[in-house]
Amino acid sequence: MKVNILGCYAATPRSFTNPSSQVLEIKNHLFLIDCGEGTQVQLRKNKIKFSKIEHIFISHLHGDHFYGLVGLVSTFRLLNREKELHIYGPKGIKEIITLQLKLSKSWTNYPLIFHELTSKEPQVIFEDLKVSVSTIPLKHRIYTNGFLFKEKTGDRKLLINEALKYNIDVTLYKSLKKGKDVISEDGELIPNALVTAPPDDPLSYAYCSDTVYDPEIVPLIKEATALYHESTFLEQQAELAFPTKHSTARQAATIARDAQVMLLILGHYSTRYPDIQLFKTEAESIFQNIILADDGKEISVK
Amino acid sequence: MKVNILGCYAATPRSFTNPSSQVLEIKNHLFLIDCGEGTQVQLRKNKIKFSKIEHIFISHLHGDHFYGLVGLVSTFRLLNREKELHIYGPKGIKEIITLQLKLSKSWTNYPLIFHELTSKEPQVIFEDLKVSVSTIPLKHRIYTNGFLFKEKTGDRKLLINEALKYNIDVTLYKSLKKGKDVISEDGELIPNALVTAPPDDPLSYAYCSDTVYDPEIVPLIKEATALYHESTFLEQQAELAFPTKHSTARQAATIARDAQVMLLILGHYSTRYPDIQLFKTEAESIFQNIILADDGKEISVK
Repeated sequence: MKVNILGCYAATPRSFTNPSSQVLEIKNHLFLIDCGEGTQVQLRKNKIKFSKIEHIFISHLHGDHFYGLVGLVSTFRLLNREKELHIYGPKGIKEIITLQLKLSKSWTNYPLIFHELTSKEPQVIFEDLKVSVSTIPLKHRIYTNGFLFKEKTGDRKLLINEALKYNIDVTLYKSLKKGKDVISEDGELIPNALVTAPPDDPLSYAYCSDTVYDPEIVPLIKEATALYHESTFLEQQAELAFPTKHSTARQAATIARDAQVMLLILGHYSTRYPDIQLFKTEAESIFQNIILADDGKEISVK
Repeated sequence: MKVNILGCYAATPRSFTNPSSQVLEIKNHLFLIDCGEGTQVQLRKNKIKFSKIEHIFISHLHGDHFYGLVGLVSTFRLLNREKELHIYGPKGIKEIITLQLKLSKSWTNYPLIFHELTSKEPQVIFEDLKVSVSTIPLKHRIYTNGFLFKEKTGDRKLLINEALKYNIDVTLYKSLKKGKDVISEDGELIPNALVTAPPDDPLSYAYCSDTVYDPEIVPLIKEATALYHESTFLEQQAELAFPTKHSTARQAATIARDAQVMLLILGHYSTRYPDIQLFKTEAESIFQNIILADDGKEISVK
C-alpha cells in the first residue's frame, strides 16, 4: 500500500504548493482522495495513470478539496475514457458537476456515477473482495467525511515446498489457501497448518481532513496502519483552530496516540508557516512515528 | 497597452501548458479574459496583482476557458477583498459559481456582480471615460463571445513650453486639453492648435477564441491594433476545424488580413503539435505581423 501526496496545503493553490489531493494504491486500486484545483496536472507530474482511477472520494465541498474535480471529469472525456467513474462525496456534488457539463454541452461518454453522502454515522461506501472503504464522520464547518480504507484478510499463504513434500494435488491448492485440510495423493489427511502460513495482516489507511480535534473518531480508526490527519495550525495559533474547525499538529498527534495507529502522516498545512518541519517537531512530543506529507511525496504504508 | 498570456493552449491543462487566460492592461485597468483551471497560480507566477482585477470576461462555458474562475473568486474572499468584482459571461455562469459558493457556505464578503450575456448581436458591456468593451459574437459549438477592448480618444496633449511662452494661466490647461481656445494673461486669444498636439491614436484589442473561421467578424474588428485569434489547428488538420468549430492558423491570418489589423497574436493551440512555430510559419503566407502567444509571455500592443 502506498500514498502519493499530490497536494497537502490548506486554502489556495500557490506557485509551488497544491491544495488537497492524494492517490492511495491499495490491492490493485488507485483511489483518488480529494481533488483540489490543479489535481489533474499533479497526476501528470507524478506520472499516475489516469485510466487506473475508478473511484474518487471527496471529503467535503470546500474548494481546496474539490475544485479540480470537474476538470478531471472533463479530461477523462477528452481521453476517450470508457470505464465507469465513481464519485463519492457530500450531497450537492452531483449537481455541481452535472450543471457544468450540461452548460458546456460536454456530457461524459463514460458512465459517471455519483454516490452522494448524507449520513452522519460511519457507513461502508465501497466494498469488493479485497478492500472496503467506510466513512469517518468529521466535525468541520460544513458536512465532512474522512475515509477509512481497509484491506480484507487475505488467503493463507501456500508453502509450496511443503505441499509438494506431502504430495498434494495442485487442484487442492485453492482449498488450502482458504484454510481447509485436504487429503493427499497418498490418501493421508493433511492438516492445513502443515502446508500454509497465516496471511499477512491487513493494512488500513485513515484519511481525516478537514476536522476539528475530535476524540470521537478514535474508536473508528483504532490501530490503523497509517493515519493522515490534518494539522492546519501549530499550538501557537491554537486559538484559530477551534473556530475554523481545524486541528493543531499536537492535536493530530494526540488522536494518533490514542488510536494507537502505527504511522501518522501530517498535512493540510496553513501556508502561514515558513517550514513544515515545525509541525513534526510539535507532534513528536506526543507521538513518535510521523511522516510529513508534502506535494509529490510517495509514502509506503506497511 | 499590454497583454500577459497566462495560458493559450486548447483542452486540458498539462505539466507545462495552461488553458486559456490572459490579462489585458489598458488605461489603468487589468481585465482578465477567460480563466481556465490554474489561472490563479499563473497570476501568481506572473506577479500580477490580484486586487487590481475588477472585471473578468468569460468567452464561453467550455472548461478550458472558465474552470479556474470559482477558485479565483474563492481566493479573492480569502484575501479579504472588499472591492466589487464584475464577471461577464454566458448565461449560466452565475448559477455555476453561486451553487458552489452556497454548498461550501463560503459566500464572498465582497460584492460579486454577474453580467450574463445572451445576445447574438454585438453589444457594449463595459464603458468608462477611457475605455469600452464590446462583445464579438463568435460561432462555436456553444454560445460564445469574443471581446473588443477599445481606448477612447484621449485629451489633446498640452505643449507645456508653448503654454508658458503664451503666458496662459494654469487653470486653463484643462480647457486646452479639451481642445478649446483660451485667452492668455496678456488678453490675447490663443488658438488651441498653437499650444497642444493631437492625442495619441486610441488602441484596440480584439480577443476571438474559440471560433470557427467566420468572415462576419471582420467588420467588427476592422483595423484593431491587435487581434488575438484562435488557431487550434494547422491546415493539415483542416478537416477537424469545421466540425469542432475551430480555426486553422491560415484562417486566423485571413481574418487578420481582411480586417487590416496591425498585429495578429495566435493562440489556443491544439497540444498535438510538437512546435508552435508551425502556426506562425503557416499564417505568414497570408499575413506578416504575427506574434505567437505562449504561457508567461508579455506582449506590448502599440
